This record gives sequence, structure tokens and C-alpha cells, in this order.
Amino acid sequence: MHTTEQLQQILETAIQNLKFPDHPKQLYDPITYIINLGGKRIRPLLVLMGTELFGKDAHDSIHAAMAIEVFHNFTLVHDDIMDNAPLRRGKATVHEKWSTNTAILSGDVMMVEANKNLAKVNPIFLKDVLDTFNATAQGVCEGQQLDMEFESRDDVSIEEYINMIRLKTAVLLGGALKLGAIIAGASEKDADLIYQFGENIGIAFQLQDDILDVYADPEKFGKQVGGDIIANKKTFLLLKAFELANGEIKEALDTWTGYKDFDNKEKVESVRLVYDTLDIQNVAKESMNKYLDQALYLFKQINVNEVQKSNLLTLTNQLMAREY
Amino acid sequence: MHTTEQLQQILETAIQNLKFPDHPKQLYDPITYIINLGGKRIRPLLVLMGTELFGKDAHDSIHAAMAIEVFHNFTLVHDDIMDNAPLRRGKATVHEKWSTNTAILSGDVMMVEANKNLAKVNPIFLKDVLDTFNATAQGVCEGQQLDMEFESRDDVSIEEYINMIRLKTAVLLGGALKLGAIIAGASEKDADLIYQFGENIGIAFQLQDDILDVYADPEKFGKQVGGDIIANKKTFLLLKAFELANGEIKEALDTWTGYKDFDNKEKVESVRLVYDTLDIQNVAKESMNKYLDQALYLFKQINVNEVQKSNLLTLTNQLMAREY
Repeated sequence: MHTTEQLQQILETAIQNLKFPDHPKQLYDPITYIINLGGKRIRPLLVLMGTELFGKDAHDSIHAAMAIEVFHNFTLVHDDIMDNAPLRRGKATVHEKWSTNTAILSGDVMMVEANKNLAKVNPIFLKDVLDTFNATAQGVCEGQQLDMEFESRDDVSIEEYINMIRLKTAVLLGGALKLGAIIAGASEKDADLIYQFGENIGIAFQLQDDILDVYADPEKFGKQVGGDIIANKKTFLLLKAFELANGEIKEALDTWTGYKDFDNKEKVESVRLVYDTLDIQNVAKESMNKYLDQALYLFKQINVNEVQKSNLLTLTNQLMAREY
Repeated sequence: MHTTEQLQQILETAIQNLKFPDHPKQLYDPITYIINLGGKRIRPLLVLMGTELFGKDAHDSIHAAMAIEVFHNFTLVHDDIMDNAPLRRGKATVHEKWSTNTAILSGDVMMVEANKNLAKVNPIFLKDVLDTFNATAQGVCEGQQLDMEFESRDDVSIEEYINMIRLKTAVLLGGALKLGAIIAGASEKDADLIYQFGENIGIAFQLQDDILDVYADPEKFGKQVGGDIIANKKTFLLLKAFELANGEIKEALDTWTGYKDFDNKEKVESVRLVYDTLDIQNVAKESMNKYLDQALYLFKQINVNEVQKSNLLTLTNQLMAREY
């Protein structure tokens, strides 16, 4: 069993060893570019941890981990086109640096590269691996579609929102863990438990993101606090506020989300005041903790010893212990 | 062994039985739309014929055939965005009817659906099937990239052009046949021969398309004769003409391809006059026949009896016997 640092080293080596053709340059350069923008490599790490959880060596699932990382980067390239995003991790997005057409086509070929990596797994697990990967990829596409649709809808329920973040974010975490488990020869029951664990962690993690956007310590937060408020993004907090607000509070919320021109700082402070009045932070934390508790409840049922569980538990705690 | 008509019936039934989720509607409606625009279903037909060529039943490879058809339609959706095409088979393209974002994301999920169909093939062939499919998909992406790059280049050689149409069009025909062969348990040698047959037929077929665009009987041709000339499309004919032309002929070619404003009919007639002077039609036909002969030479070497070869030979003759 490897330490988390060792697993991260195994990943970085494998990522640097990913080989893409040289030609056509315009098609393959963006792949190297986006993958080398970095990121925390959480998803491929979960694949490896899913394998070691069940007592097998991380190297057994390194190709599946690469498939997940390349797939994840493919979704970033295409999502950035759809979201019209100029920056990704502080650098120009692929469609900005090259062109939209290049970003579409490089993304497409990344999907193929992901599948090529997947085809390298031990053939005895191949069918199960493909089914899990394809179900995951399909969920991610559905989540992105719902996210786009929500932008122009005024009647998104909390339930719909949770389902959207489940698809867009959480199924990939669950799918990554399950791929690792399958390749370790885990039982179907354990593979499903680790999948459900990942999905619940993913939802909790996204809810935490929603909370941090409003309540993070600006000194420690990587990005602008209040970005979601400025953009009227339909997060758990905003949807919950609309659900709970009435009277003057409702009016204030309608007014601030209705303004076309506004001072960013003033809007963030005013909407946060609405949230505070409605105790939205605690409501959101309660929901987050519900998913986190459910995840840990499922994790406990997995039939392996505590030592093998330690890496994943520590990672979960680290991920959920970001600064408020 | 089925007749071609029976195979087409098997395909149509399978296509109508393709099931996609109902929700999100915006994501899945475009898939049904594009697939039901029709087309000749040549590629999935080649999968089935590849299987029956080696003595197995077409139903064995129906999932692979569906994977190829869904993948092909995915490339149409994304290519139409990149080519800014308003129409596909006389109907609005997906990005025109819905939006570019919908076309990107529906295309992505079609790629996943193609892979889901592929995962249904007999597990003993799965690894080979995936390797062939992924190599094919990668080639098609590379071909589209080269095609786009050629638009802004003035130094495209005939060799580069042939390589581009090989990737963009021909590898999919070869790949379709090879998938069918693999699923029939064909030897590696025979599977490679049928792949090479398909690739050569694909190149011959595209060269025939280039010739037909200029020399087809307008009464029998489905689209506007001379469309490639009007658009300055770098076809075999135009590239060959630039290679052979000099003096006044070269000047005429430069002039007509340089005009921003022109009368369509006058341009088509003038460029065709250049082609006639240089005997381009025959040069192109010679090249086309070279690939066709090579295809038939390879086909002859495949180690199965003449009866089993008859369907594919008849189809080849039909495809190559379009009206001039």
C-alpha cells in the first residue's frame, strides 16, 4: 500500500509519460497544454485509491486513472467553450488560445485518447470498466446540459439542483473510485458502496464550494469571494434563499438579483445579508453534512480493514476541511 | 448469409430500436433527429458485411454496426458546427435547429452512446474491437483537422490531400469492415486485408466524388454541379490543375480562384475549361482506378470463397458506378 504522496508521484509520472501523436500539431498541442495546466488530480487519485482500498497495487489501475484524467480535461475544454470562459486555472482556455473549432476537435480526440487508455486495462475487467466509465461519462454530459438549462430557468428546485451537481460533479468521483475497485476485483456490493460513497462526497464537496463562495476567508480563498452572487449563479444558497424568503427579504433578493448594473461589493454584501437573515449558511452546512454523513455511513460498510481505509478517509477529511 | 436488402432491413430495425434516455430532452432529441435524417447507412452495412464475409451471422456484429453509425452521426454534428453548415441532407443542422452548445454536448454524448454500443460486443473480441474503433475514431478526427488546415494553406500537395481524405473518409470504411471481421473471428491477416480494402475503396470513392462535383450529369446529380469550384475547395482536381498548369492556363486558374465576386456559372465553366485543357478528369480517373484496383487486388487475397465475397463486390461496384 502506498502513501498518498507516493500515489501522487505515480500519477505525475504517468501523466508526464502520456504520449500523443506529434501531428497534426494543432490537434494535439491543446491536449498537452490543458493537461499541464495542473490541477489537484483528485479524480485519477481516487481511481488509484479505489484499487489500493481493496488490497491491490495502484499500478494495476494506472491506465484507468489516466483515462479519467484525460476525460476530465476533455470536459473542461468543451465546458469552457459552452460557458464562454476566457480563463482556466489562470491561463487562456483552449478555445481562446487556439479557436473554438480546435477546442471542439481536440476535445473530441481527447475522448478517444481516454478510451484508448481504458482499453489497456486487464481484459478480464474490461467490460465492467467500460460500462462504469460510459455511465459516468454520460452522467457528466447530462449534468452539464442541466447546468446550462438552469441558467435560463426561474423555477429550479433544490432537488433538481442536487441532481444536477450529482451528475455534473459527483458521478465522476464515484465512477473513478468504482473503476479502481473493479480493477482490484472488489465484489459488486463493495464496488457499489464505494461508488455511492464517492457520489455523496462529491455532492457534499460541491455544497461546500457553494458556501465557500460566499463565506470563505478572502485571504485564504483562491478566487474572488462572492463570484456566484455577482453572476446570479443558482447555487444551493440562492435557491434556498428564494425558497425561504418572504416579505421585505424576498423583495431585497428580487431587487438585487434583478439589477443589470450594480456595484459588485454592494451586491455581495446585500445578498449575504439576506442569506444571514435566513440563516442560509447553516441550512447549507446541514445539507452538506447530511451527504458527508451518508458517505461515511456507506464507507463503513465496505468489507476491508481500517488500515486500507485510512488513505481515503484522510483525503476526505482534507477535502472537507477547507477554510471558511 | 443474408442478401444486401436483408442486411439493410436488419440495420433499419436496429436503428429504430436504438434507445436514448428521455431526459434531458435538449441533450437527446438532437441524436434521434440526426440519425433519422437518413443516409445510405453504408458504414454500418460494411460492419455487417465484414462479419458475413467470414461466415458469421450479421446479428453478431449489430452492436458494433450501431456504434459505427452513431459515431458517424456524431462526426456529422461536430463537423457541421466547424464548417458552419446550415443544412445536412436538406434539413437544418443540429447547431442551427438548437444551438452550438447543444450540438457540442449532444455530439459528446453520442460518442458515449457509440461506446456503449461497442461495449455490448462479445467480450472475447472486446479488446480488439476497442483498439480498432479507437484507431478509426482518432484517424477521423485527424482527417477533419487536416481538412480545416488545408482551407488556409496554399501549398497542399496531392500526397497530403490523399492522406487527408484517407483519414477523414476512408479509415472509417476500413475500420467498419475490420470490426465486422474481428467479430467473425477472422485471422489477423484477413482482418488487415479487409481494412486495407476498405481504405482503398474509401479513397477511390472520395476521388469519384471530386470528379462528379465537376463532371456529373446535372439531371442525375443530387446537388449543384460545380459546388467545389465555386467554393475553391482544394479537391484532387484543383490541386492537380495547379500542379500541371503554366502560362495562360495558370493565369486563368489564378484569376478565377482569386476573384471575390464572380458569376457562379461563369466560374464553373471557366475552371472546367482549364481542367479540360489539362485533361484533369482522366488524370483523376486514373488515380481513382489505381486505388480501386489496389482494393480489388487486396480483396482477392482474402481467404474465403467467392460466394461469401459476392455481396461486398456488388456493393463496391454499385458505389463506384455512379453517373458521370
